[in-house]
Formats: sequence, structure tokens, C-alpha cells
Amino acid sequence: MLNSATPEFLDSLRADLPEASFREAEPRYFEEPRGRWRGRGVVVAPDCTEGVAQVVRACAAARVPLVPYGGGTGLVGGQIAPDGPVPVILSLERMRAVRGLWPEENVMVVEAGAILQEVHEAAEAAGRLFPLSIASKGSARIGGLLATNAGGVNVLRYGNARELCLGLEAVMPDGRTWNGLKRLRKDNTGYDLRNLLIGAEGTLGVITAAALRLAPRPAGEGTALMSVAGPRAALDLLALAREHMGEGVSAFELMHRQGLDFLAETLPDIRQPFDTPPDWFVLIDVGLARGLDPAGALEALFAEAFEAGLANDGMIAQSEAQRHAFWEVREQIPEANRRIGAVSSHDISLPLSAIPGFIARGAEVVAGIGEFRINCFGHLGDGNLHYNVFPMPGRSRADHLSQRDAIKRAVHDLVHDMGGSVSAEHGIGRLKVGDLERYGDPPKLDAMRAIKAALDPAGIMNPGAVLRAGD
Amino acid sequence: MLNSATPEFLDSLRADLPEASFREAEPRYFEEPRGRWRGRGVVVAPDCTEGVAQVVRACAAARVPLVPYGGGTGLVGGQIAPDGPVPVILSLERMRAVRGLWPEENVMVVEAGAILQEVHEAAEAAGRLFPLSIASKGSARIGGLLATNAGGVNVLRYGNARELCLGLEAVMPDGRTWNGLKRLRKDNTGYDLRNLLIGAEGTLGVITAAALRLAPRPAGEGTALMSVAGPRAALDLLALAREHMGEGVSAFELMHRQGLDFLAETLPDIRQPFDTPPDWFVLIDVGLARGLDPAGALEALFAEAFEAGLANDGMIAQSEAQRHAFWEVREQIPEANRRIGAVSSHDISLPLSAIPGFIARGAEVVAGIGEFRINCFGHLGDGNLHYNVFPMPGRSRADHLSQRDAIKRAVHDLVHDMGGSVSAEHGIGRLKVGDLERYGDPPKLDAMRAIKAALDPAGIMNPGAVLRAGD
Repeated sequence: MLNSATPEFLDSLRADLPEASFREAEPRYFEEPRGRWRGRGVVVAPDCTEGVAQVVRACAAARVPLVPYGGGTGLVGGQIAPDGPVPVILSLERMRAVRGLWPEENVMVVEAGAILQEVHEAAEAAGRLFPLSIASKGSARIGGLLATNAGGVNVLRYGNARELCLGLEAVMPDGRTWNGLKRLRKDNTGYDLRNLLIGAEGTLGVITAAALRLAPRPAGEGTALMSVAGPRAALDLLALAREHMGEGVSAFELMHRQGLDFLAETLPDIRQPFDTPPDWFVLIDVGLARGLDPAGALEALFAEAFEAGLANDGMIAQSEAQRHAFWEVREQIPEANRRIGAVSSHDISLPLSAIPGFIARGAEVVAGIGEFRINCFGHLGDGNLHYNVFPMPGRSRADHLSQRDAIKRAVHDLVHDMGGSVSAEHGIGRLKVGDLERYGDPPKLDAMRAIKAALDPAGIMNPGAVLRAGD
Repeated sequence: MLNSATPEFLDSLRADLPEASFREAEPRYFEEPRGRWRGRGVVVAPDCTEGVAQVVRACAAARVPLVPYGGGTGLVGGQIAPDGPVPVILSLERMRAVRGLWPEENVMVVEAGAILQEVHEAAEAAGRLFPLSIASKGSARIGGLLATNAGGVNVLRYGNARELCLGLEAVMPDGRTWNGLKRLRKDNTGYDLRNLLIGAEGTLGVITAAALRLAPRPAGEGTALMSVAGPRAALDLLALAREHMGEGVSAFELMHRQGLDFLAETLPDIRQPFDTPPDWFVLIDVGLARGLDPAGALEALFAEAFEAGLANDGMIAQSEAQRHAFWEVREQIPEANRRIGAVSSHDISLPLSAIPGFIARGAEVVAGIGEFRINCFGHLGDGNLHYNVFPMPGRSRADHLSQRDAIKRAVHDLVHDMGGSVSAEHGIGRLKVGDLERYGDPPKLDAMRAIKAALDPAGIMNPGAVLRAGD
């Protein structure tokens, strides 16, 4: 029912769009970070919203599929079309302007192709903070971050991408532009189209610009590493930290000794923070208001946590260099994981109180399948764990290909049984379409299918992502 | 195309539901706070989700319209069906259980009929805070608060109802139950049905329960009143307060001398806070972390604001009784307004930086229509003003009926021209359907109509609210 983007189709597009809109089909457009898929397509990169609308209208008229393309950093294949009719890859890379920044409102309006790092810098230049932060900030673009409702390390304090967006401009599947770039905190005028497009992974429209929420910069920041008796103690420490510092707790990251071992093995230049590596430890990052000394507040927290038996050992950064060193441990663990090579990785979330039980039961479930190393770490403050399963020393992921699906299934079944989510922050993309069908609520899935059919009756928008094509 | 709830239809419902589900059609179900509409209908109040589902299925089968009914406190007629086929008023009043409360997760799950005040009390008993707070908290119910995405005084710090909801259970228009009561901060598994139902005012489904987000209670709270030179100075003071105290600023309310005059005229027992009433003043409420003294922090803020020429006079509450007295000034202004009797009231929001200009131009626009008193006050921190126009002394609203529409139109046109919203927190209901058509973005309106038709093809869910019936 859909047609490939043929040379004739491209010729007709050329009549409407400046030549600079047509990009070489370089390999980077068809690769993704984990190397699971290879895509195909013709690449078009308009430099304005009306250009995007022209492409969408042409695709709608010819029933040619269209894949909105941001920074290409997604981990679930949402930006890759490996099969089906040849699509238009609609790249937002030429739309990266900051259209406006209002420090007194804590708002900026940027185009979808703006790179997260650039947005951070623009906010900082205005004395403000755009708090969304993920590992791929140097290449991820705002449109993709919103389309996938990106999370990251500061969700505990500032919310995910959804909560940092006040308004959107988007080209709908019929090629008309929704002008929803309101700079308002309160606006109860009809259905929440903004939140429907956020997280829809490009299947309901193309985000072309966004009004983003900024935050005042905290007066002072501090970071600590503390070893804890286990996940239960880590949760109690989180509650204590929030009792001490309220919203001042910006990040609360749980890590396991396995992560330190992988760092030692693959990235030996990274300084190991503990003399004796603890089984479990947390990174606490705080940004406090005037009148509070972050290092002092962290010391007071540690003293009370030590007294209560929650923390055994700890270190509080005494300089920006030390804060950076502490964060580097956390930030390099994914790279160490990559070098070891996971058999199966899981981006999951759980109700906070279920986490200790999940970690215990997860280890049993995985051990029931075979002998593996587990590196479980993540955004404990949000209940979001990256639960990754690795081969034992001397073995490789290739040795375990046959067990991969069983591990994934067992972990996801357990997460689902415990009230969790099998996609906390990475989305569904193409990787987890089957998971969504297995674990999703049937009335919700039917509502999603009805919405998709209503807004995109021809099914041209990123077919095969989130919902099975033709659903 | 829709049918009235006939005696025969009710008889068939009686076969399915216990007798206690059927309520006397008391007048309170058909009145609303501003006395603009009178409704009709038969009242059914199931005591469980499956009972709600049975009613919805019966209505769907017989094409009988259905109006979900919470506390009846809505100000835009969303809960009232004044015409068309006689509907079922589906009251959630018998579903008010707290299904669970997890202090360590900062989450509670409550049924839709729970009254906001009861939710506050349950959270408080667990040492937590449910921060949503509006004037009608003694009768408003959670289902209605979510269906209308209620706002109130603490949105600045904690967000509106939308941001305080982690998950929903709802009966969809086909009578199936969506089980979306996840207690998760991060869950990127498909389209955001939760936020679609929130703010849909009962037109896409019936919310039966919600997972609500709680907050730790601040260690100490404080309140101040400060007189300011004008709205511009108030905005600068807001920015300064957030620079001093970050997220610790819980509420920032702007008021005008007109409000004090109305209080003096209609509620003389309320103590006037200022010896010389200022033209403009703000109420600042803060809740701070350990180690900070709220009164001391407010004094430091005032000192710097005074130095900078932002605040001329101020008083900082030295006791809970004083905090209460300051808040009473703010909270009784709507009652004073009601006693004076507004010609036209407007629940609007604007980009923060547009507010001083709007207040100046609004006064000119209204003066161009006639001689009136304006009481402009509201949640400045959210850009949300209640902009109410009153007759001059000695005249009454009845003298100005012919000018009412012109005033409303002029104010709303100005708000729209300045990038604002004509419904900041009250919703569309039946009152503002025409405003939505006039000011709404056409592609967004079409998307809304397509979604409504897709999810509720028979159009039984609260027909005539938000979208014109039959749209």
C-alpha cells in the first residue's frame, strides 16, 4: 500500500525544494549505535518548516513512507527503516536555529535540529540551565529527544523531555503545520497534542521546533560518592537526601562493583574512586540555593547516613575537577559495558520499592539460564535501571547468542510482573514492538492503533516504529 | 443519533447494577458554581471500576450520552448537559478509596471520587505532601481534577494536575478498562494515553483511579507579602526569589489594590494587611530544605529587593497564624469578587514577559468599551491571571449585560494576539467551545476531532464539551 521513493518521486520533490535540501545518502544515515539494523532511503533535509511540510505533503500524495531523522543516536531502531518500501529520510539537521530565548521567562524556542549540547550552551550563555542531559548530548537533536521523550541523569529533579517542553511546532501527517509554540505554563485549551507527539517516535507527525523550559542555575553544586549496604539502603539514603535537601538533589545514580571491574578491565586510565571497591555505591549530585554549602550539606547527609547504617564509606568532591572525576566513573560505565559486550541489555523501570526485590530475583532468573555477569546500574531516583547481562571472563557475547532471547524474555517478564516498564527511557522503536504487544495493555494498544489510523490514515509516518506497520 | 436515557434504558441498567448505584436526581447534580446552566440526566454512581464499565457499555450499546461527574466544581460547564438527549450522569462519588500509599516512593493510588482534601490528609498522615491545591479542595474530586488538568497555587513549584499524575485507570468509550496505574517515573512504552485523557474533560473516557505523585514535605515554610511598583517589578522580584531560593518558591501570587478594596467592602472582618494599600503587591510562599530559616531567607530577599527598588514595603509572617492571615487575603479575593459581581471574568495565561504589557493594554481595551473596575490577580509565577471586570460603584452586572460579550471578546483577542491562552486552568467545558474554535490552531482542532471520532465513534462521552457535539 505504500510506495518506494522512486527517482521520479525525487524529481517531483526537486521541483519544490532547493537543491541544498537533497543530501548524499551517506552510510551514517543508515547505521545506528548498536549495529543491529541497516537502513535504506533517500535523504532530504529542508531548512525550514515549510520545506518539511512540502516533503510531507509529497509523501502523503504519493504514499511514500517517511522517517523523521534527528541525531541518529536512538538505541531502539526508531530512526532506521530496514525493510519495506524505500522511505524518505527526513533529516532536521539544517533546522537548528535558536528562534528566541527569554531568560526572565525561563523559556527558549529552538528548531528540531538543534544539538543538545548547543542548547545547553545557549541556555548557559543566558545564565540559565536546560537540564536534559544524556550521554549522546554532543549529537542528539532536540526533535529526536522529544520524539523519544528522552530521560537521562537529571529526571529526578527536572523531569524528562516531556516535562521540559512547553510547546511544539510540528508538521502533521497531512502536511499541515500545527503552530503550538506557546510559551505558557498553563494552557487548558483542548486535547494534549503536545504530549501525544512527544514519545510517539515520529509516527504521528514531524516535530520542527519546540518551546523548552529552562531552569535557574543552582547557586552551588556538589557531588558525592557513597558506598551503601545494598539497593534497599540506597533507597533509604535517597529518601534521607531528599529530606535534607528537597528538590536540591539533582541526580542519584546507583552503581555496582561490576561496573568498577569493567572500568578497570577496559579503561584502566580512569581513576578508581574506592580503595576497596564496594558491592554497591551511589553518586549523589546536588544543586542548592543560596545560603547552603553543597559540600557541607553532603557531609551532614553522610554523617547521618553513616550513623543510620545506610552508608559505609563516602567521599565528597572538594573541587570541580573532583566532581568531574566522580561523574566520569558513572559516565564511562556504558563505554566499558560496550567494550565487554553485553549478551542482553535492558532499559527498565520499576516502582522504587520493588527495586531491591527485582535485583535479587533478577539475579536468580538469569542464573537459571546460565552463568553470566550482571552489571546493574542507573537512575535509581527515577526507578530506572540499566540491567545488562554479560558473558563470564574468557567468553564472548557470540558464545551466548542462543540464550539471548531467553534472557531478555525472563528479565522482561519479571519486570512486568513487578509493575515495571520494559522501556523506561529509550522508547519502543523497532526493537521493542513485540514487547509492547506482549506487555502492553490491550485497550491502550487499541487506542494507540485508532489514534494512528485517525491521524495518519495512509500510514506514511515512520511505519513499523512503535506499532507494527499496517496495524 | 444519540438517544435519551429512557425508563426502559434505566430498567436494563438495573438488571446489571446493584440498586445502591442509582441516585436521586438531586438538584446539586444539575447546578454549577456560577449558575449559568441547568443540567438534566439520570444519576448513576457505581462503587467499582467494573460498575463504571457496565454503565459505559450500556450507554455505548444504546447510544445514550454519558457525563462523568466529579465534585461538580468546574467553572466552564463541563459537568452539565443543558440540552440534547437526556444523559446518564455518571458520578464517581462512591469510588473514593485510597488503594495504596507508598511513602518511600512518594506515590499514592486513589480512586477518582476521592475528594482533594481527603487526599491531602492521607498524604500528610504518611508524612508526605500532595501539592495540588485549589479553592474548592473540600469538594473537588480527583477524577475531575485530572479530567480538567486543574492548576491552583502551587503549580510554579510542583506542576499542574498533569504533572502530578504517574498513571491512570480509565474506562474507555467502548466500555473496556485501561489498566494504566503504573507507579513509574519513566515509562516510554507507546503513545501518552495518560496525558490525552488528562485535560480531555471526560470526552475520551472515564477516569476511575490515578497513581498520584507525592512530594517530601519541606523542612520549613514561610510566607511574605511585599508591595511592588508594578507587574514588571513583580516579575523581577519573582526572578530574584528563584535566584535566592530555587525551587523553594512554592507560590508567587500577584494582587491589586482593587482586591483589597473589594475585601474591605464585602468582607470587612478580614484584616487588611497594609496600612496604606499599595497598587500592586505579591504573596510569596516558600518551603525550604533543612539548614535554611524561611523567615530569614524571606528577609534577605526583601532586603535585596528593597535595595534594587523592586519592593517598597513588606511583611514576613512570624507565626503560622500570620501565614494563614496572609493567605486568607489571597484566598478570599474570589469570594469578594463574587459578592461584587463580575461583568466578565477571564482565566488567562501569558508568556511571563508579556504580562506587564497585557495589563496596560487590557486596561485601555476595557476602557474603550466603558467605565469599569478591573481586579487583576493570580498565579504570576505561572503567567496565569484572573482578569475580572466589574461595574463601577452603584452599578451592577445587570446594567452591563449588553457589553459583556464585547469585553470578553476584546480581552480574549488581546490575550491571543500576545501569545496567551484564553483558558489557563479552568478548561473549555461548554463555556469556551466557541473560543476554542476562534483561537485554536486549525490543524490541532482537526487532530482533536479525528481523535475524538477514533476513540468515541458514537460520540457518547460528554457530548458538547470541548468539541461541538457532532463535530
